[in-house]
Amino acid sequence: MPAVTYEHIKTCKQTGARLGIVHTPHGSFETPAFMPVGTQATVKTMSPEELVEVGAGIILSNTYHLWLRPGHDIIQEAGGLHKFMNWDRPILTDSGGFQVFSLSEFRTIKEEGVHFRHHLNGSKLFLSPEKATEIQNALGADIMMAFDECPPYPATFEYMKASVERTSRWAERCLSAHARPADQALFGIVQGGEFEALRKQSAKDLVSLDFPGYAIGGLSVGESKEVMNEVLEFTTPLLPEDKPRYLMGVGSPRSLIDGAIRGIDMFDCVLPTRIARNGALMTSSGRINMRNAKFERDFGPIDDKCTCHVCKNYSRAYIRHLLRADETFGIRLTSYHNLHFLLNLMEEVRGAIRTDSLGDFRDEFFESYGLNKLNAKNF
Amino acid sequence: MPAVTYEHIKTCKQTGARLGIVHTPHGSFETPAFMPVGTQATVKTMSPEELVEVGAGIILSNTYHLWLRPGHDIIQEAGGLHKFMNWDRPILTDSGGFQVFSLSEFRTIKEEGVHFRHHLNGSKLFLSPEKATEIQNALGADIMMAFDECPPYPATFEYMKASVERTSRWAERCLSAHARPADQALFGIVQGGEFEALRKQSAKDLVSLDFPGYAIGGLSVGESKEVMNEVLEFTTPLLPEDKPRYLMGVGSPRSLIDGAIRGIDMFDCVLPTRIARNGALMTSSGRINMRNAKFERDFGPIDDKCTCHVCKNYSRAYIRHLLRADETFGIRLTSYHNLHFLLNLMEEVRGAIRTDSLGDFRDEFFESYGLNKLNAKNF
Repeated sequence: MPAVTYEHIKTCKQTGARLGIVHTPHGSFETPAFMPVGTQATVKTMSPEELVEVGAGIILSNTYHLWLRPGHDIIQEAGGLHKFMNWDRPILTDSGGFQVFSLSEFRTIKEEGVHFRHHLNGSKLFLSPEKATEIQNALGADIMMAFDECPPYPATFEYMKASVERTSRWAERCLSAHARPADQALFGIVQGGEFEALRKQSAKDLVSLDFPGYAIGGLSVGESKEVMNEVLEFTTPLLPEDKPRYLMGVGSPRSLIDGAIRGIDMFDCVLPTRIARNGALMTSSGRINMRNAKFERDFGPIDDKCTCHVCKNYSRAYIRHLLRADETFGIRLTSYHNLHFLLNLMEEVRGAIRTDSLGDFRDEFFESYGLNKLNAKNF
Repeated sequence: MPAVTYEHIKTCKQTGARLGIVHTPHGSFETPAFMPVGTQATVKTMSPEELVEVGAGIILSNTYHLWLRPGHDIIQEAGGLHKFMNWDRPILTDSGGFQVFSLSEFRTIKEEGVHFRHHLNGSKLFLSPEKATEIQNALGADIMMAFDECPPYPATFEYMKASVERTSRWAERCLSAHARPADQALFGIVQGGEFEALRKQSAKDLVSLDFPGYAIGGLSVGESKEVMNEVLEFTTPLLPEDKPRYLMGVGSPRSLIDGAIRGIDMFDCVLPTRIARNGALMTSSGRINMRNAKFERDFGPIDDKCTCHVCKNYSRAYIRHLLRADETFGIRLTSYHNLHFLLNLMEEVRGAIRTDSLGDFRDEFFESYGLNKLNAKNF
């Protein structure tokens, strides 16, 4: 039995979205689920207790960052990432691949792995399927990700084909290197850009390796929402129904709903915490920027339909004051609210699947949030 | 009956320190008490709930800062400072005088008040006894402070004498301007530097005005610990026994104990939160800097004798990592610990007064914290 399993609860009759539970060594979480991102072993500004309050069932942490600082050996000595950061619910770590391709300089991709320079101090580094797996084994997250190539967008069919084939070879090497399959589940990552033939090839390769879960990578990299939805529509059916499906790096309200409708179970994104630090807040009637002068004397909550601790206790005027005064407590409040908003949205999505009405929910949400229904599936 | 009253519980037989309770419109707090500083309507990095957890019975906020941003009118419209910042325990606001003298540029002191320029944008401003009182009435803190002149250190006897006399005249104007004596108590501030004759004159002037509480200002401005203790020794006996006594801007562990022994009931200082943001932490065996490389693989708590939430759940290695990675959660944890340390110290000081053993407590604490007993009173 793999360390992580997927229990299917029901499928939304209106949309085909899946309601499920993912079981891990650190407990279970309901899906579709959004994973807050704790890059450096902390979800920026938030305490673990607050993450529980806002409803986080699982969080993501970044292998690349933890490898370089403080070092995966230190986290292993501390008793693993859960203990190090005082979070006893599930954790997923990425492979570091995305950061190698997006942050590092002078990278050279070879069959053995990727040679590159540290994005901060310029030192020479090397990451490979074996190394990424070793680091993640040391970190001890419940879910680990295979080390893949993250190709640029756009890429030619030929480039993408070679990349997909390498990613498949690397996936096999990750599986072989994985030292703790009873404690940690290694997920494969389907690549292939917007090319259906390549997504098929990638999915076929990876499914044959029998991973306990699958991610869809290479989306939300610059393509339109329509392309993303189209890729999801032809990719998710290629994945086994009895395993979790994770859409990497996606976290706008629109994409969370669009993704769930297309059979995705897990999502992650820095969006809610990143925009919160700039004062941008998600509300039931769309995004607002709390730094705006019009909120100077607005003594109401961020969102009068929201039930979170911040909306119950603090005014827009106070939060605006804190942000303008560069007070840390301001970004604590905005981060808390945005995470609550997205995690609550996922709760509502799961509720709508339960009542076979996710299509209706989407239409109502898009309307109130001010989103157009471009490329929306009809039900 | 004034808005704020002092209830004397007992005097330490060993040292003369006072145990008491200060009653305010927002509840009571035990003294000697340390007040965390929330300059901009937030104690940096901390939530109100956390302030309660670490044992804050009263906090201080700065009139100068709130006047300039967001503006006292906005805080008044919000329902006052307590509601604005979601803190329902007592608050003390200073008068803005200290900031005018320490932060502003090109100030001109006249009998009417002080003309100066904004420390950030250079605009022309004017603060007077009447204006400082009006702003504090709008903020609505339980305890307000009279607008005084904060003379430079060192100052000549002649300068200080003129300053003390002006401060007395200004104190009377503050009392006359005070619009809400039933809701807010205005404290007078005894100045006079290190000159006993001037402290006597200042105390006599202010006591004749019958303030509901008195502060001792102009200490911790560069003088030695010996001078501070000496000034306290001849100043506190000049103040009424049935009113609270507040030593402004003092918050090192040593000075809190020294001050309590000399009859002080209230203290405030940015020290615990300011040093926390640099990684400096107070422990039962003295100050340590958490950024130090020797803590890289130290998986023990900040202080193994500490019972705070941080010491129960986080390691030195984790906190060091967060500080080095510029993660906000790191300074949340260090601020929390330092405030807990000082507030717990005050709890211990009160316990030692109760058992007439504050002198013994001081000796043991100084020993373990690594402080010399220079100028210590003998008992």
